[in-house]
Amino acid sequence: MPLERLRGFRDIYPEDMEIRDRVLDTVKSTARSFGFSEIDIPSVEPLDLYRAKSGEELLGQTFNFRDRSGREVTLLPEATPSVVRMLTARKDLPKPVRWFCLPKIWRYEEPQSGRLREHVQFNADIFGSESEAADAEIIGLACTILDRLGLQGHYEIRMNDRLLMDEILNNIGVDSPREVFSAIDRFHKVTEAEFLKTLGDLGLDEKTSSVVMRIASTKADPKDAMDHLNRISTISDEAKNRLKRLLAISDLVSKYTSSRVVVDLSIVRGLSYYTGLVFEAFDIRGELRAILGGGRYDSLASVIGEQQIPAVGFGMGDVVLELLMKRAGTWVPVRSEKSYYICTIDRSLLDWALTLAAHLRSRGIKTIVDLGDRNISNQLKMASSSGSRYAIIIGQKEVSTGKLTLKDLVKGDQTTVTRDQLPGYNPE
Amino acid sequence: MPLERLRGFRDIYPEDMEIRDRVLDTVKSTARSFGFSEIDIPSVEPLDLYRAKSGEELLGQTFNFRDRSGREVTLLPEATPSVVRMLTARKDLPKPVRWFCLPKIWRYEEPQSGRLREHVQFNADIFGSESEAADAEIIGLACTILDRLGLQGHYEIRMNDRLLMDEILNNIGVDSPREVFSAIDRFHKVTEAEFLKTLGDLGLDEKTSSVVMRIASTKADPKDAMDHLNRISTISDEAKNRLKRLLAISDLVSKYTSSRVVVDLSIVRGLSYYTGLVFEAFDIRGELRAILGGGRYDSLASVIGEQQIPAVGFGMGDVVLELLMKRAGTWVPVRSEKSYYICTIDRSLLDWALTLAAHLRSRGIKTIVDLGDRNISNQLKMASSSGSRYAIIIGQKEVSTGKLTLKDLVKGDQTTVTRDQLPGYNPE
Repeated sequence: MPLERLRGFRDIYPEDMEIRDRVLDTVKSTARSFGFSEIDIPSVEPLDLYRAKSGEELLGQTFNFRDRSGREVTLLPEATPSVVRMLTARKDLPKPVRWFCLPKIWRYEEPQSGRLREHVQFNADIFGSESEAADAEIIGLACTILDRLGLQGHYEIRMNDRLLMDEILNNIGVDSPREVFSAIDRFHKVTEAEFLKTLGDLGLDEKTSSVVMRIASTKADPKDAMDHLNRISTISDEAKNRLKRLLAISDLVSKYTSSRVVVDLSIVRGLSYYTGLVFEAFDIRGELRAILGGGRYDSLASVIGEQQIPAVGFGMGDVVLELLMKRAGTWVPVRSEKSYYICTIDRSLLDWALTLAAHLRSRGIKTIVDLGDRNISNQLKMASSSGSRYAIIIGQKEVSTGKLTLKDLVKGDQTTVTRDQLPGYNPE
Repeated sequence: MPLERLRGFRDIYPEDMEIRDRVLDTVKSTARSFGFSEIDIPSVEPLDLYRAKSGEELLGQTFNFRDRSGREVTLLPEATPSVVRMLTARKDLPKPVRWFCLPKIWRYEEPQSGRLREHVQFNADIFGSESEAADAEIIGLACTILDRLGLQGHYEIRMNDRLLMDEILNNIGVDSPREVFSAIDRFHKVTEAEFLKTLGDLGLDEKTSSVVMRIASTKADPKDAMDHLNRISTISDEAKNRLKRLLAISDLVSKYTSSRVVVDLSIVRGLSYYTGLVFEAFDIRGELRAILGGGRYDSLASVIGEQQIPAVGFGMGDVVLELLMKRAGTWVPVRSEKSYYICTIDRSLLDWALTLAAHLRSRGIKTIVDLGDRNISNQLKMASSSGSRYAIIIGQKEVSTGKLTLKDLVKGDQTTVTRDQLPGYNPE
């Protein structure tokens, strides 16, 4: 029986790979245009790197094992701890540091729409700035990437602040706001009854639970968020300051994109290390999982590398992005206009064909040389199915006259040209 | 104590990553110009995919483990079996199929110069052609990649044929040539005495062992290889045919590159699935491990997917390639000529700076906006250390007159320009 690949893993064939490559090129060139530099991180790390930093839920989803030396290691479940380790190992770098990376990430979860066990994740971070301009730049980069992928109008940014949530929850009598975060994180994935039951299990009384539910339901334009909250509970000065900060960030983000930005108090993010701003991007129709997510994590460098370095960043997986692009009609191939398939009447002309191919290829023109296993009519069939735009036919006559028979595989017409007259060929 | 990364794994910082990216772009664009299409394969596969296909040595070097379902899996120790699995799953594809991929590969070996536990491997294969033109195209692609990376003259191709070796060894009385292959594979890594002892342990008598050593020492221009062999032993007709095939391949390869190609009878390759041509590229000074290696494997598709599909391909790791490029002086950064760092006299001008940045970035120009955490002289210091070519200084005067203060960070001179006069900026 043929061997199958593992569940939740992908074989990616050329049809999709070509589009993926173009998408990733756009992602990378956009990050570079913002002054972000690319790094690469190991795919295997000590399991300790995630213990007590990323949260219990994540640890339970790792592909972890003991290596041949007996050490507990894991496939990368997320990029941020490795990136922070790299940062703290280089004290010479002038800050702020802007980095991005595109690692593969593994989670042992049940595969479903938008979620696989292996995916590629784009990560971008700014280290060494506490300003709201840094937060806005991170969200602005995320939006600019989506916009350049043709997704403008297809998504919205939902933002919140964990310190704001601490203040609000404390203010209504919740002693351990962080325990309530994981319930709020699942607010849109469960029924109201389930949500209230979870809060009850955490020791909240009915009245407080019902206020928490109103809070988690709050979604508003950043300039209206304060009014919305005022109607639910009184707001402390510190909470007001955090709301003003969110407003300042969203004002700056409007310089990067015309996409919609809202304050959504159900956004708290699963990872335990976030310390301020948190945000996610969602498809505007609300049908998919989050497209990307991130926030501010000012304490992680002190845990991993014993240094105080403020940080803000986001991660975006390729699985939901592909789904969204397919729905938006932007996941489409581009046919290469300059591509040749060289056929030879007999194998002794292969030398001649290879010399011509080398000329074309050195100019970046895709050129396939038939390997001489079949007759000319089958070569021309192969030329068509290869997706090439033109076939070049070489026989003894062509070699002796220096003229080539050129067949346009899209239009079907056939002409005779010199090498310098080949479409797309620029002789120096 | 700060957490360290695992032995044999790399943190790759922007200085190197920028060069790597350019190198990988060259590798990919060269493969595409030959008509090869990119695919991607899983990083984790069932361990069974490698059992009895790749050879015992490789199995002992895998990062293998049981996943949470108890299944024996492994990080990818090589790409070929996964690629063949993908191929046999798609019977609709017209052949020959030309594919490449760039996966990460893991081997639990002792790290040393040119060898790490994680590396990126470029793989290219042609499926569905038995012709020597296909073999030549694979070697030709390998050489063209090295040539485009500026390595012409720095390497040579050493080729051999496993069927030729079967014939030669049978002819001198060796019953199980394949057992002798693993000794020959290590010929240049051990002393003559160690080599002879290994052959003795395999049951070869002294005279036969000494002939095997002369065979393994044979390295010749393809057109002289027959004469060389004639001096060591008589050659069967089948061996002559295999030698003629190598000569035909090397003749075709000369159409792709002017690099040196030799027949080297010590090249047999470690993996057990090769069925004909085998080849490796070595630095001309012989100081490094093989740069790349490959060959023909016509039986693997029948083992993995129960189909008869002839195949030829090669793999090239990034570790030795980087070493070779560093020695050849071609592992060098390219300073971006078009890059700006925008400084603002006060933070209220950030909006204005971001609007300008969006314009520049949308034209692919790298533009960093200072995040407003420091005064103007510190912003200019940061601009210099960021590697940007120009600083743009924005104050109230600039905003009211529409003129920008532009400082050339390389030459040091300062001018006043309109936005449309910025170097590299093409207004539409």
